[in-house]
Amino acid sequence: MSDVADWWRTSIIDMEPGRIEIRGRPIEELIGTLSFPQMIWLMLRGETPTPGQSKLFEAALVAAVDHGPQAPSIATARMAVTCGLPLNNAMASAVNMLGDVHGGAGEQAVELYHFVQRTENDLAGVLADWTAIHGPILPGFGHRFHKPTDPRAPRLMALVEIAKNDGVCEGDFAQTAQEIEAEIGTQKGRPIPMNIDGATAVIYAELGFAPPLARGLFCLSRSVGILAHAWEQSQQGGRNKGPTPPQYRWTFDPENRG
Amino acid sequence: MSDVADWWRTSIIDMEPGRIEIRGRPIEELIGTLSFPQMIWLMLRGETPTPGQSKLFEAALVAAVDHGPQAPSIATARMAVTCGLPLNNAMASAVNMLGDVHGGAGEQAVELYHFVQRTENDLAGVLADWTAIHGPILPGFGHRFHKPTDPRAPRLMALVEIAKNDGVCEGDFAQTAQEIEAEIGTQKGRPIPMNIDGATAVIYAELGFAPPLARGLFCLSRSVGILAHAWEQSQQGGRNKGPTPPQYRWTFDPENRG
Amino acid sequence: MSDVADWWRTSIIDMEPGRIEIRGRPIEELIGTLSFPQMIWLMLRGETPTPGQSKLFEAALVAAVDHGPQAPSIATARMAVTCGLPLNNAMASAVNMLGDVHGGAGEQAVELYHFVQRTENDLAGVLADWTAIHGPILPGFGHRFHKPTDPRAPRLMALVEIAKNDGVCEGDFAQTAQEIEAEIGTQKGRPIPMNIDGATAVIYAELGFAPPLARGLFCLSRSVGILAHAWEQSQQGGRNKGPTPPQYRWTFDPENRG
Amino acid sequence: MSDVADWWRTSIIDMEPGRIEIRGRPIEELIGTLSFPQMIWLMLRGETPTPGQSKLFEAALVAAVDHGPQAPSIATARMAVTCGLPLNNAMASAVNMLGDVHGGAGEQAVELYHFVQRTENDLAGVLADWTAIHGPILPGFGHRFHKPTDPRAPRLMALVEIAKNDGVCEGDFAQTAQEIEAEIGTQKGRPIPMNIDGATAVIYAELGFAPPLARGLFCLSRSVGILAHAWEQSQQGGRNKGPTPPQYRWTFDPENRG
Repeated sequence: MSDVADWWRTSIIDMEPGRIEIRGRPIEELIGTLSFPQMIWLMLRGETPTPGQSKLFEAALVAAVDHGPQAPSIATARMAVTCGLPLNNAMASAVNMLGDVHGGAGEQAVELYHFVQRTENDLAGVLADWTAIHGPILPGFGHRFHKPTDPRAPRLMALVEIAKNDGVCEGDFAQTAQEIEAEIGTQKGRPIPMNIDGATAVIYAELGFAPPLARGLFCLSRSVGILAHAWEQSQQGGRNKGPTPPQYRWTFDPENRG
Repeated sequence: MSDVADWWRTSIIDMEPGRIEIRGRPIEELIGTLSFPQMIWLMLRGETPTPGQSKLFEAALVAAVDHGPQAPSIATARMAVTCGLPLNNAMASAVNMLGDVHGGAGEQAVELYHFVQRTENDLAGVLADWTAIHGPILPGFGHRFHKPTDPRAPRLMALVEIAKNDGVCEGDFAQTAQEIEAEIGTQKGRPIPMNIDGATAVIYAELGFAPPLARGLFCLSRSVGILAHAWEQSQQGGRNKGPTPPQYRWTFDPENRG
Repeated sequence: MSDVADWWRTSIIDMEPGRIEIRGRPIEELIGTLSFPQMIWLMLRGETPTPGQSKLFEAALVAAVDHGPQAPSIATARMAVTCGLPLNNAMASAVNMLGDVHGGAGEQAVELYHFVQRTENDLAGVLADWTAIHGPILPGFGHRFHKPTDPRAPRLMALVEIAKNDGVCEGDFAQTAQEIEAEIGTQKGRPIPMNIDGATAVIYAELGFAPPLARGLFCLSRSVGILAHAWEQSQQGGRNKGPTPPQYRWTFDPENRG
Repeated sequence: MSDVADWWRTSIIDMEPGRIEIRGRPIEELIGTLSFPQMIWLMLRGETPTPGQSKLFEAALVAAVDHGPQAPSIATARMAVTCGLPLNNAMASAVNMLGDVHGGAGEQAVELYHFVQRTENDLAGVLADWTAIHGPILPGFGHRFHKPTDPRAPRLMALVEIAKNDGVCEGDFAQTAQEIEAEIGTQKGRPIPMNIDGATAVIYAELGFAPPLARGLFCLSRSVGILAHAWEQSQQGGRNKGPTPPQYRWTFDPENRG
């Protein structure tokens, strides 16, 4: 059916003049009552989380807000304001960068955990199956900068442990992730610890979020860092600021050796 | 100076392998401790808000998450996923739309309040000065859909009143906004009530945020709705979904009468 | 190696104060000498095309500039300017929409032709292999609107025929595409004619462009329509123009039946 | 009026199944007949240019395709593909950067020329009026890298001279630009030569394009360089490539001295 009024359909929001209802609840009853993470959860899932769920969810949102101006997304936000863009366009330019490689590891890690849990095989075999399909990088483990340990992951995993003890969640995703971590370490002969994406993926999986929402929620979280850096750069000034100082420019490589 | 290591500078984040500090505080001490709004505030301002400030701030963030698929930003997010875009690109496309007209009213309203407060003139004169510079639309007042009243504004203003009584904030922005509202009503001969942008602008101004951050924070808030609608659309399916049902298409108007 | 000056490397452009060389050729020798399509080719490939190649290439660029405001990309561009965005941001919002579903068919069709040519099997079997991997839609054939025939395709294919007779290109991509078209028609029991993506894919494949560049070149071409519609909308005016007229809004569907 | 079919109106394109008309002309008559610049002109203006106009227009499009990976737009495109973005999203991220500071100088220079031509005052006074409104930078003159001369500008101005001698255009924009150049040089006590934005602005103004289209056309032109660099980077590889080599990162500056 494609009547005009029916062309866009949503279960999220209903309105008439003077009335806004989010998931069936008047907006004025939500404002000042729900926390921001509870509102995010309500918008995505149609119900509000328990206090325990909300607290764990909030920890994941807090953990990923920033990883510095070396990240392409943050660098883009800072360059954008020096190009004269207002904050909304700077934020958009930066969030756009959170693609499969930069922002997709959380989503991929949730998929990996589900894949491991539903595949009947020994773990080494399952991981080999995964890498045969998706390539050699196992999402959620190891960090090119934080060696040996990404400080965010153990903290998040401790919160998952507490939440499980409190009955907030009941899945096996922490165990799955730790078994993968152990297996990779054995295969490599050195620890390849879980990183922030692996840990937030445990949380999002435990809380029942579909894999793509792990990426979406990462985008929300990192938008905070993007906004903060864009704003700071706008206060610093700078016009048309390129990636490196002007005198370095780039290497002309006619042979294109890459 | 433009040494390489000095090319990008920030007071927001410091790192070395295994250590991440946000505004001088180890990330693992913030995760599970700060609320998400507190973390947003810390990132933007270098300090954490008081509980009262945090609560008022959170209400503004909650209030603006969504206004439905008729808004160009939300429509863009929904169309984007039907074009095959993952959530990060859909979110970016949508946030990009929050320009001067769609996402800028909060920023402009904060500017208006500051302008009124610093200009020595009767209010009618000050508003005439403003419109002479910025055009006839006074940002933050009236709503083309919610007549007579945007239900979010009175709720937010009630929270401001409570916060002021509790000593959370001490500015005159609520009063300024109400005086503007009264003046416009007098001039028009009918009520032109404060809308959500006018009310969140009171909050952001009371809490000491610079005008452009009112836009940035609106982008953060509306990103929630953008994500929720993009995700819902991805679950509904649809390929290359245009704005109106296919049979309507558009009007070819060779005379270009607009 | 990651010395700073070596961090970004390119074979496309070299500069020093007062000198710009594109692919080893001074810019002032190219301006007023190369056509715009020749410049595009030079930028992408490091050499200039023959006149015959340039003419065929230009036809593909001309063919795809616009398909009307019902296309999500064009609709986005038009909405963007009513949100207050300048042309660069409106164009970016729109080009961003040209993802796998909206802008990727040309790239996928080039891949399909290569897949057919390198797979030893009867055509029905090869197409079955393709759809097993990529899903049921064969890129480049059929059009949901232009039934029976997309008027751009036969014209482009006639130009390919002329180019082949003139020795401009020597591949078998036209034949491959026509065999696929015939096979699909046989399977479906009705003609499923080649569309613009199938035809431009023949051209880009014949001219030796890698599959992703078929998407990139489509983006360049459609950017023309995007700019034209954004500009026209800015002349028409309109503020915060949503997808459908305001009175239609959307259907609230609490059951989320999609 | 806002009937659905009337909601989006355009004079650019008309369609029914099997028929596409651009500005009233069947698409199949344009493909293989119009050059790409002629098609751009037709889309934007509803008519085709004369051969002389087309040639001058094409020179401006060719001139601005690239200025290297140090430009924030090109840097963004290259980073984007290392984040896993396909070419459409990489191009969008980059075009988005072409804001007032990075991509707006051509538009501003056309406005400046019009401002000078319509203001009755001596040139020094007119330029003082302009900078009082718009700030100290006169768009289109001087270049922070190409000292003393941007090699593109004299070549473009020579083509304008030829075009004027051939009767292609009859405006005074070249003269206006040269008078501004002379006046700035006198004021500064050293030559501040016209740059590419100043020279393309002369061309676009002579050819009758409105100021915002100078920015739009720059975006089209630079999209070529953006695509070429994105493609080259995708062939080079690299994952999550930040602006500077990893060991440099950034300077933590808790005092925020900028």
